[in-house]
Amino acid sequence: MSDYQHTADEFLIWLKSQIPLINHMGFGDLVYDGQSLQMPAELAPNVNDKGTGFGGSLSTVATLCGWAMVTLYLREQGYDCDVMIRDSQLQYLAPVTGDFAAVTVLPEQSELDSFLEFMVGKGRARLNLKVEIRQGDKVAMTLSGAYVAINRNPVQG
Amino acid sequence: MSDYQHTADEFLIWLKSQIPLINHMGFGDLVYDGQSLQMPAELAPNVNDKGTGFGGSLSTVATLCGWAMVTLYLREQGYDCDVMIRDSQLQYLAPVTGDFAAVTVLPEQSELDSFLEFMVGKGRARLNLKVEIRQGDKVAMTLSGAYVAINRNPVQG
Repeated sequence: MSDYQHTADEFLIWLKSQIPLINHMGFGDLVYDGQSLQMPAELAPNVNDKGTGFGGSLSTVATLCGWAMVTLYLREQGYDCDVMIRDSQLQYLAPVTGDFAAVTVLPEQSELDSFLEFMVGKGRARLNLKVEIRQGDKVAMTLSGAYVAINRNPVQG
Repeated sequence: MSDYQHTADEFLIWLKSQIPLINHMGFGDLVYDGQSLQMPAELAPNVNDKGTGFGGSLSTVATLCGWAMVTLYLREQGYDCDVMIRDSQLQYLAPVTGDFAAVTVLPEQSELDSFLEFMVGKGRARLNLKVEIRQGDKVAMTLSGAYVAINRNPVQG
């Protein structure tokens, strides 16, 4: 098992201990390689009245996937941060009819560099991420979200 | 008990039978008067790693509240519809530190008239709603969402 995957497995256990709701959402193992994160979930606990994916569940998994990507990235860079979603735009494109996954990829290096510069200079920074809900090859929902991170151990000036 | 409130109580029982996740979110009784809907929830089952309201939970309660408002309104108008969220913009304004509620109000009559005209003419229509997550007087999150309704029993031409 890679170090990244080990980190992701431990992270999911921690998440489930911290956020009671996600113990009821049929999450599978995270897939993480340091640049991208996949958060799979079963359909059964996440259905709506039409037997398809409940919008609230899709929104939750997507929001959490982006949040987890930012949190994992910052931990790897040595930061102990509180990360929060600030705003998001969601588009529901197609019904989800089977198990699904949220998928996100870190933005390009120049954006990450700028993000970390703000962390160093201000003790807080904002990162925009795109997250997709996919069922196989189908993109069922997209989330574009701004996440704010605040350093819990800022250097005292 | 008013007819509206009786409708809302039955609706919540139906919702819980249809959407498994919402049985784990500490919902209280809906408050409904035909024009506005309040959907209260306890903080405890909806906390995050910081002990405040989990963004996924807030998003879910707000999305569901708007969806329920559209569904209840259409049932009252005599329509049997599938209602779906199409897109939404969410702004997280302040942390939620106690029990909270999603609150929404129907738009003005001219928008409702236009919505129903489309239902009659096309068998489908779109309604924009604003939903707030409130903790007491504090507005902690806003959702602006577009909901699409499709008539399940269209008149055959």
